[in-house]
This record gives sequence, structure tokens and C-alpha cells, in this order.
Amino acid sequence: MYVIAVDLGGTNLRVALVDKSGKIIEKRDTPTRVVGGEKIVIQQMIDLIRDVLKKSQVDVQQIMGIGIGCPGPLDTKTGVIIDTPNLGWRNVALKETIEQEFQMSVCVDNDGNLAALGESWLGAGRGVEHLVCLTLGTGIGGGIIINGEILHGARDAAGELGHIIVEPNGLRCGCGNYGCMEAYASGPGITKRTIFSIKEGITTVITELVQNQLEKITPLVVYQAAIKGDELANYILSETGRYLGIGIVSIVNVLDPQLVIIGGRVAQMGELLLNHIKDEITKRAFLEPCRRIAIVPAELGDDAGIIGAAKMIQNLIYHRGTEK
Amino acid sequence: MYVIAVDLGGTNLRVALVDKSGKIIEKRDTPTRVVGGEKIVIQQMIDLIRDVLKKSQVDVQQIMGIGIGCPGPLDTKTGVIIDTPNLGWRNVALKETIEQEFQMSVCVDNDGNLAALGESWLGAGRGVEHLVCLTLGTGIGGGIIINGEILHGARDAAGELGHIIVEPNGLRCGCGNYGCMEAYASGPGITKRTIFSIKEGITTVITELVQNQLEKITPLVVYQAAIKGDELANYILSETGRYLGIGIVSIVNVLDPQLVIIGGRVAQMGELLLNHIKDEITKRAFLEPCRRIAIVPAELGDDAGIIGAAKMIQNLIYHRGTEK
Repeated sequence: MYVIAVDLGGTNLRVALVDKSGKIIEKRDTPTRVVGGEKIVIQQMIDLIRDVLKKSQVDVQQIMGIGIGCPGPLDTKTGVIIDTPNLGWRNVALKETIEQEFQMSVCVDNDGNLAALGESWLGAGRGVEHLVCLTLGTGIGGGIIINGEILHGARDAAGELGHIIVEPNGLRCGCGNYGCMEAYASGPGITKRTIFSIKEGITTVITELVQNQLEKITPLVVYQAAIKGDELANYILSETGRYLGIGIVSIVNVLDPQLVIIGGRVAQMGELLLNHIKDEITKRAFLEPCRRIAIVPAELGDDAGIIGAAKMIQNLIYHRGTEK
Repeated sequence: MYVIAVDLGGTNLRVALVDKSGKIIEKRDTPTRVVGGEKIVIQQMIDLIRDVLKKSQVDVQQIMGIGIGCPGPLDTKTGVIIDTPNLGWRNVALKETIEQEFQMSVCVDNDGNLAALGESWLGAGRGVEHLVCLTLGTGIGGGIIINGEILHGARDAAGELGHIIVEPNGLRCGCGNYGCMEAYASGPGITKRTIFSIKEGITTVITELVQNQLEKITPLVVYQAAIKGDELANYILSETGRYLGIGIVSIVNVLDPQLVIIGGRVAQMGELLLNHIKDEITKRAFLEPCRRIAIVPAELGDDAGIIGAAKMIQNLIYHRGTEK
């Protein structure tokens, strides 16, 4: 038995055929043609799915269903994407469209949730029943796993972990609020704070690294400067870790998970960032949940969402089985 | 069928006989003799239970079990109170002791959790599957209900909602951390901030109300001054509401509940406080969970914990029934 797993992001669209054990048999990806609008992107998805099916030569009867992860807010029951700024979609009946095309079960969930589910199945959270996963990228995606299942909340909007407030009068966040963790520790949050400091006149090797083209600054550039010993870069990194630590303390005191997994492109800063996070948590860890929390890097990289999408379909089939 | 419900607090010990519908048939309470130590307090509890049983003349065969709410941290599986500063208890086998005494099922849970369960059964959260309850008192108790059940977390420490960080460099909290919601919006948090301002030389009617005995200031005194139009009192109240609002925004973005219930003695400030909370949330409500959240006062008052303890035993019996 196999699952078609789709990870629909604002930058890339990935489709894979995944077997029962979570092994990726075939995988395709392509830049998402966001500017083309929903019809073009859905056609891209359909083409990639057909492509993967054809290449793998798996009998369609062997496919349990199609699992799709994409940015929210969305409705997991109807599979309608309600309003996704990253894609510019509003009220798109994604589940229905793909179901009609392929005549098989389709399930849609938030990409942050599926990354968490993927990591809990085959990644850094194997065997852990209660965990939280943060994906640090253009935004901060979040997913909460309780008793091995995704916490969806009342209307599929739980797990907005990037929007924990870490500085009440702080930087404006993309969501409109002030001082969200995302405003500090997402890729753009890190970049903006760096550019702001450079424009204030602080001397840093970063300016050299991007040949004075400040718009070329990325978290990776900041990281490279930091390992060279650059003072500003190290300050930006420690501030990022500090705010992540503050946010994680709040999350952990609410949820009491066993594990916090940190993934996404920004997390490629590795130990350097992780140590700043851990330092901040240690300073604030007086209550049990924080005293014993483990903070670990994600293990599945870009495949976390695909693996999670495959697991979602397996869980769906399993639940149906037990209901009978 | 009946339940014996116990609410063991640092100030009062309450015991009630509750029927299947949640109606309190008999109730006793007494000041908790905390200084006497665990043996004295457990004996008080046993005496009150015997007293309630005797007075009600209910057949012991008709009692489903004894539900006890008390401050944590505790272990719900073993019923051991691990370490409770409010009572000064460490590793007290409460469940085992009471089970041996009465030869019936005993279940122990955190008082914040049981207040939430009580409100969700018969109080402000009737019919609501996903809710959060904050009890503002000497500390800030919290309880999270998901799909009608208490969220316990990995080791019974979920729901420490008072320890959401609302001001990263803020006031020291009783837990040791800085800037927790509890440091601002608990009874002592409100009192301390008021006394601090008075000592700074701010003129306020509060000084008159307590006849210059600043140690007599309570949240209720601040409230009385506020409704008289006192500027400092109103500032303290608005700041309290502001920090509660910030904390609630974080909680709601994580959990996406339908409802937030505010109870406890501090919540007796009513609409005045509630409106400040709602104002702050409105300013920050850009994401779905906060845009539609309802903030309501608790309805069960001091009985919330007792009603929740009764419901806990009912759920236990029901689950056992379905497992057979």
C-alpha cells in the first residue's frame, strides 16, 4: 500500500509516492507558480501526481489516498483553503478538486501540523507521544502532537506557535500584532533586524559578504558572519535564540510536551542557535515542564511535510478501520 | 449515584456530596490547617468526608468514588502530591491514603484543571468542547479542555497558564522566572504593583480606604477605588487587563479554543477588568483564533473545583464502562 504525499509551499511544490513504512519511492518538485493563481498551481499538482504515478508504475488500486500539506488557514473537514496569503488563495476547494481528478480519498492539513506529524513518526520525535515542532522559515510554522495526534483546536487554527507574544511592545509582525516570536526569529525577522543595525552604522563583516547589497542578506549570511566571530552577527543570533527561548518557555508551560523539535531553513544555523535557545530556557526553567524539556533539531529536513502527509492518510484509513 | 468531591486549597478545604446531575447535596468547609502539616490536613479531610456522609445518610454503596482537586505538581496516575509550595507537601500519597480509609476509588487532579472541567460541565462552558479556564487568585490557575477532556501533557504539568511570559524583562514571578502573567495579574501581583506606586509617591484614594495600612490592600480595595474614579487604581486595573490580554492572545494562538473563562477572586472585578482584557485582545486579534474568541466570566464561583472533581469521577467510571 502507498500514499501520494503533497507539500504545497509558496516557494516549492513537492509530490512523492510514499510506501507504508514511510519510504519515499518517487519524488518530484517544481517551483510553485504562485503568480499564475490557483488553477495553474492545481494543474501543476495534478501533473506532478500523474508523473509520479507513471514513473513508479504502482497499481492505482494500491494507493490509499492523497495527503496534502499547505499553508493555512484551512478547513480540514471540507479541505477548503480559506485564506492563504503565501499563495494568494481564498476559498479554494482543494480536496474536492483533487478527489474528482483522481477518484480517491484526499486529506488536507496545515503544513506546520504535517511537519510535526512527520517528525513524530520517523524523525526527531520517534516514539514520543507529546511534542511540539517549530519550523523556522519565511514564517514560523508550528505543530502540536498530543497522544500521537495533531492538535487542531476548535476550528483548525491551533498551533500558531510563531504568534506567541515574546515582546509586548516589540516589532510589528506580518500578522498585524506586535512582538510575535515570528517577527524576531523567522528568516525575514532575522534579516530585517540585521539590516536595521547596519543602517544604524554598526560595522560588520556582513556588509562585505553581500558586497554592500543589503537586500542579499539572509539568515545563512548572518550565520556565516557569526562563525567568523562577527560581533553584530553573534548579537543577532543570540537575540534570535533569546526570543525563541522565551516563546518556547511559554509554549512548554502551556502544553507540557516531552520534546520541542526545531526545523526549517533558519534552523540550519544548528548548534550555535540551539545553544542560545537552551541558555534562555535554562534561565527561565523553574517549573517542571521547562526543567525537563528536550530541544532537538529536526531530522527530516524538507521531507517532513511529505512524510507527515503520508502518515495522515495512514491514520485516516486506520481510524476508518477501527470505526467499522 | 453520588460522588464525594474535595477541593483542597491552601486557604480552605471543601468537601461535598454531589449527585449525578452535579447538584451539591451536602457541603462542608473549613480553613485548611496548613501549618499542622499533611497528617493534620488529611485527617481534616477524612473528618469532613465522614461528616458529609453521615449528614446526607446516603448508602455508601451509592458512592462512585472520591474526587480530589489540589494544587500541583502531582501525579494523576499514582495520586501522589509531588511538591506543593501552597501546602508545603512533598511526595504525599494522597490517593492511596484516602482509598485505604474509605475503600473506594479515589482520583486526584490539579485544582486548575478541575475548575476548568467543572465550568465546562455545568458552568460558563456548557456544551463547549474546546476551552481554557483561568482562575485568578493567589496564583493563576489554568485548565485546558480539549474534546471535553482535560489536557494533562506528558507528565501532568500542562495548563500552567499563569506562567506564559507577558513581559520578558518584567517583574519577578513566584516561580523564579521574570514577566510571567501571574506576576502581574494574580492577587499578590496586583497588590504589589499598587503598593509600589504608592511608595513612589502617587496620590490615591486607596491609601484612605486602608487607613494608611498598605498591607491591607487587596485587589478588591483597588477595584473599589477604581469605581470611585481613582486614577492609580484605574491604571493598575488597565495594566492587569492588558497583561491578561497579552497572555490570552498567546494561549489562544497556540490552542484555538472556542472560549476563555475567567474565574477566581480577582475576577470579581467583573466587567471593568474584562473590558480591559477584551480591549487588549481586540488590538492584537489579527489571526482567526483571536478574532472569534469569546472571553466570559466563570459561573460556578468557589464550587467550580468541586463540580469538576465530581465530573472527573463520573468520567472515570464511564471510561471503565466503555473499556469493558
